[in-house]
Amino acid sequence: MKPATRVGEFDLIERIRRRARQGESVRIGIGDDAAVLRPTPGLDLVATTDSLVVDRHFTAAWSAADVGHLAMHVNLSDLAAMGAVPRWALLALTLPDDDPDWLEGFLDGFLAAARAHGVDLVGGNISGGPLNVGVQLLGEIAPDGIASRHGARVGDQLIVTGTLGDAAAALALGADAPWVLAERLRRPQARVGAGQVLAARARAMIDISDGLLADLTHLLAGGLGAEIWLDRLPGSAALAEHVADRRERWCYQAGGGNDYELLAALPSEAAEELENLADGAGVPVTRIGRIDDSGRLRCVDENGLTVDDLEPGWDHFR
Amino acid sequence: MKPATRVGEFDLIERIRRRARQGESVRIGIGDDAAVLRPTPGLDLVATTDSLVVDRHFTAAWSAADVGHLAMHVNLSDLAAMGAVPRWALLALTLPDDDPDWLEGFLDGFLAAARAHGVDLVGGNISGGPLNVGVQLLGEIAPDGIASRHGARVGDQLIVTGTLGDAAAALALGADAPWVLAERLRRPQARVGAGQVLAARARAMIDISDGLLADLTHLLAGGLGAEIWLDRLPGSAALAEHVADRRERWCYQAGGGNDYELLAALPSEAAEELENLADGAGVPVTRIGRIDDSGRLRCVDENGLTVDDLEPGWDHFR
Repeated sequence: MKPATRVGEFDLIERIRRRARQGESVRIGIGDDAAVLRPTPGLDLVATTDSLVVDRHFTAAWSAADVGHLAMHVNLSDLAAMGAVPRWALLALTLPDDDPDWLEGFLDGFLAAARAHGVDLVGGNISGGPLNVGVQLLGEIAPDGIASRHGARVGDQLIVTGTLGDAAAALALGADAPWVLAERLRRPQARVGAGQVLAARARAMIDISDGLLADLTHLLAGGLGAEIWLDRLPGSAALAEHVADRRERWCYQAGGGNDYELLAALPSEAAEELENLADGAGVPVTRIGRIDDSGRLRCVDENGLTVDDLEPGWDHFR
Repeated sequence: MKPATRVGEFDLIERIRRRARQGESVRIGIGDDAAVLRPTPGLDLVATTDSLVVDRHFTAAWSAADVGHLAMHVNLSDLAAMGAVPRWALLALTLPDDDPDWLEGFLDGFLAAARAHGVDLVGGNISGGPLNVGVQLLGEIAPDGIASRHGARVGDQLIVTGTLGDAAAALALGADAPWVLAERLRRPQARVGAGQVLAARARAMIDISDGLLADLTHLLAGGLGAEIWLDRLPGSAALAEHVADRRERWCYQAGGGNDYELLAALPSEAAEELENLADGAGVPVTRIGRIDDSGRLRCVDENGLTVDDLEPGWDHFR
């Protein structure tokens, strides 16, 4: 569909500038060659970038606001996985045309998500071409408060936030997906607050974007292995309602991506304490397995029997 | 052309990780959810992002190394225009396939340019989709050393670095462009060192990516105008050789983009001093006009006569 009006690149940038919040830490924001930011003394800088591509991460049927929401949250989730406090965003938009309505809709979702997490949009760039949404997110963290992917030890317990499998089930059900599952795919909520709480206790942490099993392998360096307790994987009521088969649910929960929950390895006392605190990390936390020295990843059912052939996670080129 | 081998997303990331330099300021680099960087105490952070899109910023005929070089230099140029010292880069690649040869070629150009300017590649992201190269560049600057776009005053002289028009002439000549002009288009050299020298003296500065006249308008807020002396615009020997018509050269020099030179407004003593210093800013500097209070932009020839209708600069959607 052709846009009703054509406004040009600089009008689009002006529309973004008018709506972007820029707090005191922003010395120079949108409208110069680069943004100038005032870091907090003593904190380290945390930087990530993630792009959304049409027909890969979303479809043309999505609202512009949903695309904006997702673009911010996939990046928030990366900062959450380090335990960082999000601060500033840059936005690199490649747009097929200069449709102001699409842009305003996109900003509705993008800026609402930014505002909810204290993020200022401070700069960016607009090009013409196939739709591609690039976001760079900067955050801050105390030098001794970082949770990297490396540091898990034998005996650590594995915990996840929230529930798993809704987004993968929505993808699999396609147009038949019930609203509550589809909404989880389009509107994930990055666990920013939980990430900060967990980072203080976790030996290692990662966000689950490609799938629990795929992302867990990144925590297993140097001969570590893990056991995942399939019957403990947290799932939503909607998942149980719409996916009757237990094994199919496990596939979505252990193999499917796009949930943007956090997975962390903690000493077992800390994991138990967090789990018992109901909402101790801002969201429910569930123990789902443990790190061992087996060098491999094993999924077991409630009888301790190995369950194989769960879906393998996401590779952009396979 | 199909790639000879298909290696998958994680192999591509591993290839980048192996080749990326990561200095002491990089606490966590490629391979985690986000990079963790140690800022220099007392300095402000400078952040920019620019994307390259095939058939907009380069063609399929370009070598991957040329695309890599350009992707780094368009971002270096934005930091140069603030006077900042480049430090860290993030790379968001959207690739049509997982061709390792293209990636290695791209890294040849990208990492050579990064290394030449002390930039560490610290993170990024790879997606599948139409080719799109997104770069985020972070730099640092002393809080009192910033040259923004705002601050020019009536009577200031306008200077540019290097020469203008080669890239625009190469674009116009297309496949007929001589190598020396085409090379300027494919291999611009961001004026990073000159930017730091000029920022200490300039009242306002910008890089010339869209074209001298188009970018100059960004320095003219609040009723300012400017006069450009067309016969003083610096041009290369190659431009004079291959574009015989003086007016056509002016079009390329004043209207054409992609040169990535710097344009600055300085008090006239400072401008004269810099110009007389031959290579005082690391590159030749030429006085090309002055700021006035006319509220408009006027190009004049050596007789002071107005020359109209020079090309207007670049808008991605026009």
